[in-house]
Amino acid sequence: MSFRFEILHRSARSRARLGKIHTPHGIIETPNFVAVGTNGTLKAIDHQRVESIGLQLMFCNTYHLLLQPGPEIVKQAGGLHRFINRKMPIITDSGGFQVFSLAYGSVASELKSQGAKKQGGQVLKIDESGVLFRSYRDGAKIFLTPESSVIAQKAFGADIIIPLDELPPYHIDKNKLKASLDRTHRWEKRSLEEHLRHPNQQAMYAVIHGGVCPILRKESCDFLTKLPFDGFAIGGSVGKTKPEMIEMLSSVMPQLPEEKPNHLLGIGDLESLEKCIPLGIDTFDSSYPTRAARHGLLLTQEGGIKAEKAENALCFAPIEHGCSCWTCTYHSLAYLHHLFKAKEATAHSLATVHNLHFMVESMRRTRLAIANDQI
Amino acid sequence: MSFRFEILHRSARSRARLGKIHTPHGIIETPNFVAVGTNGTLKAIDHQRVESIGLQLMFCNTYHLLLQPGPEIVKQAGGLHRFINRKMPIITDSGGFQVFSLAYGSVASELKSQGAKKQGGQVLKIDESGVLFRSYRDGAKIFLTPESSVIAQKAFGADIIIPLDELPPYHIDKNKLKASLDRTHRWEKRSLEEHLRHPNQQAMYAVIHGGVCPILRKESCDFLTKLPFDGFAIGGSVGKTKPEMIEMLSSVMPQLPEEKPNHLLGIGDLESLEKCIPLGIDTFDSSYPTRAARHGLLLTQEGGIKAEKAENALCFAPIEHGCSCWTCTYHSLAYLHHLFKAKEATAHSLATVHNLHFMVESMRRTRLAIANDQI
Repeated sequence: MSFRFEILHRSARSRARLGKIHTPHGIIETPNFVAVGTNGTLKAIDHQRVESIGLQLMFCNTYHLLLQPGPEIVKQAGGLHRFINRKMPIITDSGGFQVFSLAYGSVASELKSQGAKKQGGQVLKIDESGVLFRSYRDGAKIFLTPESSVIAQKAFGADIIIPLDELPPYHIDKNKLKASLDRTHRWEKRSLEEHLRHPNQQAMYAVIHGGVCPILRKESCDFLTKLPFDGFAIGGSVGKTKPEMIEMLSSVMPQLPEEKPNHLLGIGDLESLEKCIPLGIDTFDSSYPTRAARHGLLLTQEGGIKAEKAENALCFAPIEHGCSCWTCTYHSLAYLHHLFKAKEATAHSLATVHNLHFMVESMRRTRLAIANDQI
Repeated sequence: MSFRFEILHRSARSRARLGKIHTPHGIIETPNFVAVGTNGTLKAIDHQRVESIGLQLMFCNTYHLLLQPGPEIVKQAGGLHRFINRKMPIITDSGGFQVFSLAYGSVASELKSQGAKKQGGQVLKIDESGVLFRSYRDGAKIFLTPESSVIAQKAFGADIIIPLDELPPYHIDKNKLKASLDRTHRWEKRSLEEHLRHPNQQAMYAVIHGGVCPILRKESCDFLTKLPFDGFAIGGSVGKTKPEMIEMLSSVMPQLPEEKPNHLLGIGDLESLEKCIPLGIDTFDSSYPTRAARHGLLLTQEGGIKAEKAENALCFAPIEHGCSCWTCTYHSLAYLHHLFKAKEATAHSLATVHNLHFMVESMRRTRLAIANDQI
């Protein structure tokens, strides 16, 4: 099945919409949450359990997969789906986000995940052709260009791929941001051209940039929506605070073509989901629920539960009453509390199952509310 | 169902025997391998997967469970089976092994697992009444006696429990070993008396001691087999080398009552299993296959495979041809190689599933060979 976006309902109350993204590996109901499986696995949980939870889209990182195992091995395996044995849709990014997080350091890290920074990679050169960086794994020099990113992503074969972009830091002056945006546009165009030179069933989402400057965001929308991308992601610095992000998105979203799906990169905490879905965002990726799980924070409709808190030692009920996840079906909060106290890896797996299930259920409830014009 | 041991067949070729240990939580076919789940979970794998592998007996450590979550909480949960949600049999030890590993340090550690030593607990006093030690978790002083160990093990409610013993170091002079043995016998007798004062469906295995001294081992067999224990474990220093262990077991095994089940404590590597089963050992516990898994050593009938070796990067076949484990059914060795290289926790889970399945299958083949008098 080739890529297609279908809008089922538009809320009467907001820009929120219900949709279905059809991909070669099945349907993604929108709005939806996208879990991050950087290295081709979600952390501390195997694919069978992920699929049984019903997580419809998984985000893998080209930067990591480029270094290990590398596109050649994935290609020989028959693509990422076969290599990791996932039957449902996958999205990959371009590798740019991680490379530039390393280059610009703390501000970008402060705004998004800090994961990449800790790995101590190194950017050696950035010019019009692309970016030269040193592998954090073995010190090898790697030259990432719009074309090489797309070639790698074609070897991986994800259902949705992303063009190479530059991630400028938050505290950048306007002239530099404008220069960065122009180069990003040229890179995205080259990425799309490379993609269209080897047509297949993959879809490519552009990445709208422009930081927190409304004029540049508009320029980015104007430029990118004229190109035949299959969807639009919103990237770059989305603001230092949630109100700043909401303001930016409120002005950007109406500039995107309604008939194409969109994605908010790297944002997926519950509060952001609640605020962004009424603006019309379709999908969100974030490592938040899986990382929270490994830190013992269990998500429930009444808020987060810190598994290690003493008050949970004697709670022989499930994490959340009525939760149908595998963990809540078989285990008590007291047992999870114990496993976290005993520093057992199983604690991470059980908590991850619950948090992912929570996100999936939470998005199901959200879609129902949109169907009923309650959002 | 109460505890009962049934011998189905005695090999015509050796002392190996086929049996069934009936317990309140089901049957343990013997000979069998017992996986170690120190804190009430096998490391990096959940119970559902453990049960689907068919691992019939799980070994939990009283020392660890005493400190976290403590017997009171497990009792309130309705016992260890309910607390951890395991339906199949469990065995607990007395806590003594870990306490004395801490006291005597390197030699005992060298001979058995070094896990406990690293935790840096501290033995404060050992006398006739019991042993006073400091919790490695919170520094609390804990007094472990034959009676308190049994009371804790009754709160846990495992199918098989172990009396408190002293674990003397390997390099101990004969007089001290004799004194230690005598105290161990008094402690084991007191443990049994405490157990019989509160009769329930739990079985208690004595622990035969005497180090590598045949006279003391005989004395231990003579003393303990006269008491109404339900089975016999072989503990203490079993020798520094495999030949030394085999020599000791060859002389001890004929001194144990044939009609009762026996267990070799802390030994479960493949070579030892092969050598000890013909001597008539029924069950073996070891963290070897699960620890090997976390270190990327995958067990196969042709020997161990180091997952991280470069040659596995392109092996898109399962770990072992024909293996029906969950990991081999769904994933390739190349994927495991990648997950280990990428340092993903999922690698540990997938490898653990395979290694445990391998042990279960290996024991099944062994039992078949005994049935056919081939061992």
